[in-house]
Amino acid sequence: MSVNTTDNLEALVEELARSVRRASHALAIATTDQKNQVLAKIAELCIERKAEIQRQNALDIQYAHEIGLSNALVDRLLLDDGRIEKMVQGIEQVTALPDPVGEEMERMNPPSGMDIRKIRVPIGVVGIIYESRPNVTVDCAVLCIKSGNAPILRGGKEAFHSNKILVEIISQALDECGFDPKTIGFIPTPDRAALNVMLKLDDYIHCIIPRGGEGLIRFVAENSTIPVIKHFTGICNVYIDADADKQRAVDISVNAKAQRPGVCNAAENLFIHDSVVGSHLPPIAKAMQDAGVELRISEELQSTLDLHKIPYVLATEEDFYEEYLDYIISIKSVDSVESAIDAINQYGSAHSDAIITEHERNARLFLRGVDSATVYWNASTRFTDGFEFGLGAEIGISTDRLHARGPMGLKELCTYKYVIYGKGETK
Amino acid sequence: MSVNTTDNLEALVEELARSVRRASHALAIATTDQKNQVLAKIAELCIERKAEIQRQNALDIQYAHEIGLSNALVDRLLLDDGRIEKMVQGIEQVTALPDPVGEEMERMNPPSGMDIRKIRVPIGVVGIIYESRPNVTVDCAVLCIKSGNAPILRGGKEAFHSNKILVEIISQALDECGFDPKTIGFIPTPDRAALNVMLKLDDYIHCIIPRGGEGLIRFVAENSTIPVIKHFTGICNVYIDADADKQRAVDISVNAKAQRPGVCNAAENLFIHDSVVGSHLPPIAKAMQDAGVELRISEELQSTLDLHKIPYVLATEEDFYEEYLDYIISIKSVDSVESAIDAINQYGSAHSDAIITEHERNARLFLRGVDSATVYWNASTRFTDGFEFGLGAEIGISTDRLHARGPMGLKELCTYKYVIYGKGETK
Repeated sequence: MSVNTTDNLEALVEELARSVRRASHALAIATTDQKNQVLAKIAELCIERKAEIQRQNALDIQYAHEIGLSNALVDRLLLDDGRIEKMVQGIEQVTALPDPVGEEMERMNPPSGMDIRKIRVPIGVVGIIYESRPNVTVDCAVLCIKSGNAPILRGGKEAFHSNKILVEIISQALDECGFDPKTIGFIPTPDRAALNVMLKLDDYIHCIIPRGGEGLIRFVAENSTIPVIKHFTGICNVYIDADADKQRAVDISVNAKAQRPGVCNAAENLFIHDSVVGSHLPPIAKAMQDAGVELRISEELQSTLDLHKIPYVLATEEDFYEEYLDYIISIKSVDSVESAIDAINQYGSAHSDAIITEHERNARLFLRGVDSATVYWNASTRFTDGFEFGLGAEIGISTDRLHARGPMGLKELCTYKYVIYGKGETK
Repeated sequence: MSVNTTDNLEALVEELARSVRRASHALAIATTDQKNQVLAKIAELCIERKAEIQRQNALDIQYAHEIGLSNALVDRLLLDDGRIEKMVQGIEQVTALPDPVGEEMERMNPPSGMDIRKIRVPIGVVGIIYESRPNVTVDCAVLCIKSGNAPILRGGKEAFHSNKILVEIISQALDECGFDPKTIGFIPTPDRAALNVMLKLDDYIHCIIPRGGEGLIRFVAENSTIPVIKHFTGICNVYIDADADKQRAVDISVNAKAQRPGVCNAAENLFIHDSVVGSHLPPIAKAMQDAGVELRISEELQSTLDLHKIPYVLATEEDFYEEYLDYIISIKSVDSVESAIDAINQYGSAHSDAIITEHERNARLFLRGVDSATVYWNASTRFTDGFEFGLGAEIGISTDRLHARGPMGLKELCTYKYVIYGKGETK
């Protein structure tokens, strides 16, 4: 495809979005069976056209080597047999999930006595902006289609050929199942100018979900006139209360930090009540050390760790605002559950926070006072994700407060409409 | 207050937002009684300080006359005894509404068996950008406070003095009830530069609700990095089906158009099935004419109106995209309910649309296929508002699809959090 001028590009992206919007109405009112047929067809075609997918994927891999991407990044691009098999399994899992569309969410009690029902319906057209891994193309498209939404995808340039063939397959599946093949859109150039055009098409696109690094998400939020649901990563916290069970404190804090430090629900800060620094900090610090975690501690904790000969570095104030995504944790003492709540509301990113305590009043204060999407009492912050919450699948974890907060599944890809059954009422 | 330089302004607005954010945590966890006490105190102070309010209001009225505002616009600014009384009544109504905060919305069924509850909580800090009428200051602040949200208000320059004294009163009420007086913020200058600063403070403000004309809303949506809930007005439609009862068709279409044409839920277009043009159009056209409505019709309807000597003008294609907000309606025939659905999805603004029919299958097709916030079967579009929906009060009617769609009451000023009760679970 040749895109010569900015005008051409603008017209091209706008026409694409307009076509998807036009086609989206039929998908929005499709039955569950019709949508599941599309998903089954996508799975079937992914297997049938596997050789082609891998040929296109090889072009991306070759390009990645040419531009000198690290082996880890090249590996993320690869669509080998195993990954295609996993992609197909993912499609089957989404097929098995209940359809959120059409559910009666509420009946209103209006003064007029009219019969008003709030019904869950698709959002309409959902734009997904993502980077790198090409399987995101299929994951996101399938979640959109199951929830009745027409997707417009804009992937990164590293996976361009892989994304293109996958969208072609999804489009073919839609076509073969009686939908307009333009029910899915693909921005046919990795050019940022095209992204900029896309982000202004609020007449045709109803929602943008950026998936990727903080830079990409900020760029999208700053340039979009379409509502954006942001998925920033998290500064999660664990608070060890005066009444914390010692073994739980050790197990949960080490799990929250070290089980998989590179993800958004991993803990970055630990706050510990004064009165249990002597008893609880040494075993926690020891277990962290065994798990390979660097300890960055406030001054007041030095003597305790010195006494137990546990190595540490002194934390700066900035460390507590830091998202390490690594084997590092900042630790500070607090004098009450109230101080812990204030500290978490100050340093944290309102993602996932935990209190470890056997004291019910303190737990309830914490669960209420910590202003985060997910608050835990005696459990690890690592549970914040769509599968663990029973959503079956997730399109991301929203760090926004509007529309969806925390893990987003199929329901969160929906809006609602009010349906009113009248008997000739006028005002 | 002197605001000399852009730097000063930026620092001032940022510090204001930071203070409100800090204060918002206490309001978010306040009990219903505590919040109702604040509302009662606001009402009390509005009466106690009425003379002062009216002195400040007189300054705005004087300025409005000086800059030559029309009498209608000057009248909108006026806070006479009757309007202050109505404002106080409005506060009492909101006080009586149930508190949405703390409600358990859902219990999850996670694979781990953990006890996960989805609890309604305030959004946090809500920015309201509005024009003209100073009573909006109190209406919006009271809805925010009742739902546990700290408001930051930015009103128009015409009502500057009135808004300022009203915010001072609300701040005093918060203070006297044990909250930080900075739980409410007021942008102390009508300067657009200050608005621009405010719209970028996504660290402190969680949601922006613009109330006003299309120009203001577009400006806010284009310049905000904070999620915006838009309240555009509507292009609403009525469809007269082949099986429409004639009297209902007349009553509902005239009510939808002419009962109050200047509001967002008034109808702008009428679509009528071919087969009932001869029987239903003349009485509808006659009743519209009696109500003072200008008819803009498609060519194919000319002969029918000519026959009945009802005056009309010919509609252009653009007329069907027009929001008249006036005694004008565009009329076109369609050949099926499906064509009516397509026409409404094309011309309408997805606000409020009605089908008039006695035919259940056609009604269900319409209610499902019309992609609007509110769809009516045999009732007037004029019922789309928070009071009519039983919400008790409304902060506006959202024309967005994310977060809130249609009338927004107290619940729609909330988000949710997940509260997880663990037993030491780690991953």
